[in-house]
Amino acid sequence: MAAAAAAALAAVLALSCCNVASATAEAEADRIASLPGQPPVNFSMYSGYVTVDAAAGRALFYWLIEAAGVPPESAPLVLWLNGGPGCSSVGYGASEELGAFRINADSRSLSRNPYPWNKVANMLFLDSPAGVGYSYSNTTTDLYTAGDNKTAHDSYTFLVNWLERFPQYKQRDFYITGESYGGHYVPQLSQLVYRNNKGVKKPVLNLKGFMVGNAVIDDYHDYIGTFEYLWTHGLISDETYEKLRLTCEFEVSEHPSKECEKILEVASAEQGKIDTYSIYTPTCKKTSLHRHRLIRGRTPWLPRGYDPCTAQYSTKYYNLPEVQKALHANVTGIPYAWVACSDPIYKYWKDSPRSMLPIYRELIAAGKRIWVFSGDADAVVPLPGTRYSIDALFLPTISNWYAWYDQGEVGGWCQVYKGLTLVTIRGAGHEVPLHRPRLGLKLFEHFLRDKPMPKPADSIQTF
Amino acid sequence: MAAAAAAALAAVLALSCCNVASATAEAEADRIASLPGQPPVNFSMYSGYVTVDAAAGRALFYWLIEAAGVPPESAPLVLWLNGGPGCSSVGYGASEELGAFRINADSRSLSRNPYPWNKVANMLFLDSPAGVGYSYSNTTTDLYTAGDNKTAHDSYTFLVNWLERFPQYKQRDFYITGESYGGHYVPQLSQLVYRNNKGVKKPVLNLKGFMVGNAVIDDYHDYIGTFEYLWTHGLISDETYEKLRLTCEFEVSEHPSKECEKILEVASAEQGKIDTYSIYTPTCKKTSLHRHRLIRGRTPWLPRGYDPCTAQYSTKYYNLPEVQKALHANVTGIPYAWVACSDPIYKYWKDSPRSMLPIYRELIAAGKRIWVFSGDADAVVPLPGTRYSIDALFLPTISNWYAWYDQGEVGGWCQVYKGLTLVTIRGAGHEVPLHRPRLGLKLFEHFLRDKPMPKPADSIQTF
Repeated sequence: MAAAAAAALAAVLALSCCNVASATAEAEADRIASLPGQPPVNFSMYSGYVTVDAAAGRALFYWLIEAAGVPPESAPLVLWLNGGPGCSSVGYGASEELGAFRINADSRSLSRNPYPWNKVANMLFLDSPAGVGYSYSNTTTDLYTAGDNKTAHDSYTFLVNWLERFPQYKQRDFYITGESYGGHYVPQLSQLVYRNNKGVKKPVLNLKGFMVGNAVIDDYHDYIGTFEYLWTHGLISDETYEKLRLTCEFEVSEHPSKECEKILEVASAEQGKIDTYSIYTPTCKKTSLHRHRLIRGRTPWLPRGYDPCTAQYSTKYYNLPEVQKALHANVTGIPYAWVACSDPIYKYWKDSPRSMLPIYRELIAAGKRIWVFSGDADAVVPLPGTRYSIDALFLPTISNWYAWYDQGEVGGWCQVYKGLTLVTIRGAGHEVPLHRPRLGLKLFEHFLRDKPMPKPADSIQTF
Repeated sequence: MAAAAAAALAAVLALSCCNVASATAEAEADRIASLPGQPPVNFSMYSGYVTVDAAAGRALFYWLIEAAGVPPESAPLVLWLNGGPGCSSVGYGASEELGAFRINADSRSLSRNPYPWNKVANMLFLDSPAGVGYSYSNTTTDLYTAGDNKTAHDSYTFLVNWLERFPQYKQRDFYITGESYGGHYVPQLSQLVYRNNKGVKKPVLNLKGFMVGNAVIDDYHDYIGTFEYLWTHGLISDETYEKLRLTCEFEVSEHPSKECEKILEVASAEQGKIDTYSIYTPTCKKTSLHRHRLIRGRTPWLPRGYDPCTAQYSTKYYNLPEVQKALHANVTGIPYAWVACSDPIYKYWKDSPRSMLPIYRELIAAGKRIWVFSGDADAVVPLPGTRYSIDALFLPTISNWYAWYDQGEVGGWCQVYKGLTLVTIRGAGHEVPLHRPRLGLKLFEHFLRDKPMPKPADSIQTF
């Protein structure tokens, strides 16, 4: 009996061992030895592809940057999603916002980001949907049929399959974060995880909550707030402000009517050559591409989170064969170059519900942690739109609007509602961790602890 | 006959000579040899007192910085007035905005301002009314009975008497400029000059127009726009925004009701320790005075144009006996120290009409040049209030809202109305020439030429 028990145990161990071993082997194949031009680091990174539809040949690219400073085996797992639709989380989030490195102006070497979010969590960047960044599909039509629903389901499949490769993250505290049009992806994916977890005792995706920044939340309120922002910040004429309200108020943000689009173009022309994603900073003058985009005025209104100069560096860097090799990227020979934002994905985007608020209500009721932040110098998805959207939830207030502090200066403002925390970052543009890296990390840390942003008396400081 | 004619001519010449000579002698006594800690300059400066009421012993202090770069004898004469009420044009305008020098952090030495407005005009700074800066009255009650009307009349008397001391400026092109509560002084004084000139063929005060910045124009519209600014910039709660609109909308800015004042205090507390005069820049942390002012929250709403740190330097500098001697200031032994802003003047301020718009209408009809500018990062007299006020004039538009440029970057926006030009300065706070000195000088130069702010194609560049 003892021998039989021991044999059974051994079998279990072997099974467990082998499962883990095979998973680890797959993961090990994804381990990044070192990136070209990279400074030395004391944490592990993995990247590669996870198939989400074998028949179609659809595979999503991820980059995992494990925690440093805190033990990765106990730190939470946090997914980060950029928006667009069509923009790469590797190109933006990982490379110019909250990743471990920043790409230098030579487009060949990297330097350390002094405030990377992997200081407090394991950060998982996902290029989503297929056709974005290194993610691809062998079924070309996939690029022309992308939309919210498919993106959420593919991302969900990715997560489930990815956890088979990294079983140590199963049941780990899990958060979904993102910005801009990620304001759609993040709650939608959270809802899917939440619903699929229902009735499951110890779900592998142990979703605790989500956080979005400068997020598209509710088209009606976003539009109203955007127009008000543009006028009060002096970016557009009285006349255009009036016309925007009359014509665009009830439009869908992704596909506004021709009439509304015309006035959006007038508004864009009136704004002049400013970086609408960060209205007080100088523009990048290195590129004709940037000027072209700003003058053309087709998209600056819509949430494509890019900084033109850094986007240039990433465009060069991620097209280098040695970088792709180090990242285990582009292993199938994608028939187009890596771009930070995909035009067809953006242009042919299908379903885009007008409001995420019903999902907010469902997940607030479910007790999920929800934080919304906003860099207040962004004219693309500006603060007043976010405030109007949150107001429309009619949540009870726990702590009314107050200034929060970092190193004796006001970092922004914070309001704690029952079920949701709203945080602004003073002077930050659309990409908060790019413009205010220190404040961005502080925000992230407080989110993970579910601790409201600090008043002057709260002197807690962990970095 | 020839001899008689020659004698007559000689008599005229002698008279003319003597008048000028005596005037020049008085002016010569006001000449500033050099200020303590001053770098060498190639232009003349004068300062001293002009009596405006001999019986009361009321005298106003001025500082004239003559033009450099352009010939002073043909350059216009421009008066600059700071606001408060109670703040010194010497302490603010001359010392940290558009004067020839900036006071160094040692409070003992000066450095050149690279963009002084005397590059294109003769700049006359006036401490007004009596009790402000070095200006004084031997009749103590004067300090407790100051108001708009008396200020305008004293300033007018000053100008007339001053021209007797500097007759070379008689009939010279003359402009009145200022900021903040100077938004009251400037049009009021302009109106007085205009009315007194009526029917005079060649008036000594050859008023061409006026320009005001971040100016109190119309209490109702200023309040509405201020509340909207605070909310859209994320500085106050929804609740406070609502209460401000309900309670303060129809108040007088100088003496709001107790109820309104209470909510203004709540708003001030919600804003936290930011510099409301420049909401994105770090605050000065050197002084307990500054903190005290901000925490106390009585005045940050009201237009007192100060930067706490530079104000400290000026407070020390202008109390140095050697500085007062060099400036011919405090010759009567004023029984209190020099301060940048006078508390009693501010506190006991009498008449303050709710709107300057009737004066705008009168002077626009008279063909005077009127420019209004606004630094868009000022929460004290913010841009939307200015926009609403100007809109209330219902002027026809000549050039609709457009971005203007400096060195390839958007400097701000501009709208040309029939009779009035509105210019914003991007990212500038309450004291535009302090925060954006280069753009401030550009604005001034375009005002003097009555030339709308430049579009990218307009490459005119004179400094």
